[in-house]
Amino acid sequence: MFQIQSKLDRFGVDAILFNSSEVLVSTNLRYLTGFTGSDASVIVTPTESILITDGRYKTQAKEETSGMRIRIVRNRVEAVARTLRSRRSSRLGLEASRVSHELVAQLTKKIPGLKIVPLSRDFLENLRIRKTPEEIEKIKKAAVIASNACRETLRSRLEGKRESDIAADLELLFRRGGAEGIAFPTIIASGPRGALPHGMASDKVIKSGELVVVDFGCRFEGYSSDETVTCVVGRSSEEQKRIHKAVYDAHMKVLDATKEGIGVRELDKIARQSIDQDGYGKYFLHGLGHGVGLETHEAPYLSPRGRGVLQEGMVFTVEPGIYIEDYGGVRLESLVYLSGSGPEVLSEMPKNLISVN
Amino acid sequence: MFQIQSKLDRFGVDAILFNSSEVLVSTNLRYLTGFTGSDASVIVTPTESILITDGRYKTQAKEETSGMRIRIVRNRVEAVARTLRSRRSSRLGLEASRVSHELVAQLTKKIPGLKIVPLSRDFLENLRIRKTPEEIEKIKKAAVIASNACRETLRSRLEGKRESDIAADLELLFRRGGAEGIAFPTIIASGPRGALPHGMASDKVIKSGELVVVDFGCRFEGYSSDETVTCVVGRSSEEQKRIHKAVYDAHMKVLDATKEGIGVRELDKIARQSIDQDGYGKYFLHGLGHGVGLETHEAPYLSPRGRGVLQEGMVFTVEPGIYIEDYGGVRLESLVYLSGSGPEVLSEMPKNLISVN
Repeated sequence: MFQIQSKLDRFGVDAILFNSSEVLVSTNLRYLTGFTGSDASVIVTPTESILITDGRYKTQAKEETSGMRIRIVRNRVEAVARTLRSRRSSRLGLEASRVSHELVAQLTKKIPGLKIVPLSRDFLENLRIRKTPEEIEKIKKAAVIASNACRETLRSRLEGKRESDIAADLELLFRRGGAEGIAFPTIIASGPRGALPHGMASDKVIKSGELVVVDFGCRFEGYSSDETVTCVVGRSSEEQKRIHKAVYDAHMKVLDATKEGIGVRELDKIARQSIDQDGYGKYFLHGLGHGVGLETHEAPYLSPRGRGVLQEGMVFTVEPGIYIEDYGGVRLESLVYLSGSGPEVLSEMPKNLISVN
Repeated sequence: MFQIQSKLDRFGVDAILFNSSEVLVSTNLRYLTGFTGSDASVIVTPTESILITDGRYKTQAKEETSGMRIRIVRNRVEAVARTLRSRRSSRLGLEASRVSHELVAQLTKKIPGLKIVPLSRDFLENLRIRKTPEEIEKIKKAAVIASNACRETLRSRLEGKRESDIAADLELLFRRGGAEGIAFPTIIASGPRGALPHGMASDKVIKSGELVVVDFGCRFEGYSSDETVTCVVGRSSEEQKRIHKAVYDAHMKVLDATKEGIGVRELDKIARQSIDQDGYGKYFLHGLGHGVGLETHEAPYLSPRGRGVLQEGMVFTVEPGIYIEDYGGVRLESLVYLSGSGPEVLSEMPKNLISVN
């Protein structure tokens, strides 16, 4: 918190508000305070940090935070307004993408003359972009639990099972391995469903000869992992091999090029050009990858519209894919940590076209 | 959608925007269109409904929606602005609590003269407040899967296990029973941790003589269930029995009083007075209950500040609780459907103080 308190001047504000509700979570609030409850506001002024929450979190707020004033209230918006008024804070910095229009409207109504200052996206996204060694350990733990669970799940027969049963098996192994749960809804997309980049596990039964995209991640002490493998049930066709090879080559070229200082767009372009040269350019429907930490999707964004360069301490995915409507898809995703001595792949599953039964 | 199109005049708007992003989901967008992807905008004008999303959801958007124009774009905010400009929509209704300050700022900048009209909370919350028979079936299915999973989990030994292991067992059974996953992070709060109303399952090992609060729910076809039981490991003390009885009596008085037309505050008061008379008033730290549907927490809100009366078709929880710091807690929660012939409890676990090993 203190590093933020000292920066208020730089942002031209008297106070900063971080706000978490059940429907709109400020991950920065958790990152900066340690508080994991679902409903809280944090006000940072040059001299103090105040956590405002409700009775459900009285004990938890004390346990999880330190060095903050804690206020337990019934009406949080009113308490935020009162706090700002009593501190004579008239220029309020906030996370514009994590605060609702409604909250801003309520505060500006309750505090005449209040000026809202959206904090820059760069500042907010860069807060968590370079991970500490402690964070790396947690992400690595999540990645290893998830890879182990995937390896074990793919050992058993897939043919004839529902996608959702495979997801259930995988998720039990996450828990057994020590994870808190899933990082996102597990994607098991078989046959034509593989053409859906976000094809959550469904009731569809897996058949022989199908490609199966398995995109999975678990959470360990709040931190996510994210990895994708593609399997084929039984023997693969020439076409399936060709598609897989196009994705595999793109994936490997990116890993080879990954180093401190390279632009995120440049990396995306390497993957895109590779898949394009193999004739599947129009089927690569999304960006190359994204940062992973307390959120499964966070900065840096490796995409044609991404900004900035890779820096030591970043953790991100490399996940090229090809999606052909009514046919299926292939995606290969590794979780990468850029250490001082180069990229380290934290996820552990192989990225070949995995043959399963 | 059509029922909304015909109401634009009533709200004094030319268009309504529903917007879902990964961090801020519009459940009404899903409810009204059927689209389940994480990133989409829907614009409703008097004559048409337009779904705007990105390439990842090309196939899914076609499969899940009907009667809508679908636009696949790279820059969603720009596409929304272009659509509004081309329709000459200058008064835009939106869900103020589900739209970020940033999006509103971007749209008002891109569309000179655009007037933002927050749709009333009543309208938005009442959209989904009375469930259709199809919705009731899904919620009931979720409730039964979850109750069965809980019953089976509590048959095995709890003493000596970590809370998180119990949660893992429960969640596997949700999946095996046909659920899509959890409705919310499973709460297993034993001993002093029971004093945390939202005490997510931790590494704590469960000991003999402890109270264990188990608050669990799963999701079936998008719909949530929500139920809580309290167990005692081994024999219960007199104090534990007294606390349980105070919660149990409040819970039962509320179920007895539940009927069409009764005020939500009145129901909350019945529980609060009952617990107060038993001497535990200051330990009941939250509202009596909440609606359940596509979201685990939605209208109606049964609390001292809730509004309105119970109506046929509503589904909600009744969940009084007592939380004593450094001691523990008891919560008993039933999921209730108010049918034409009276309240029907959809959850199936008993609400006595369950003795487990």
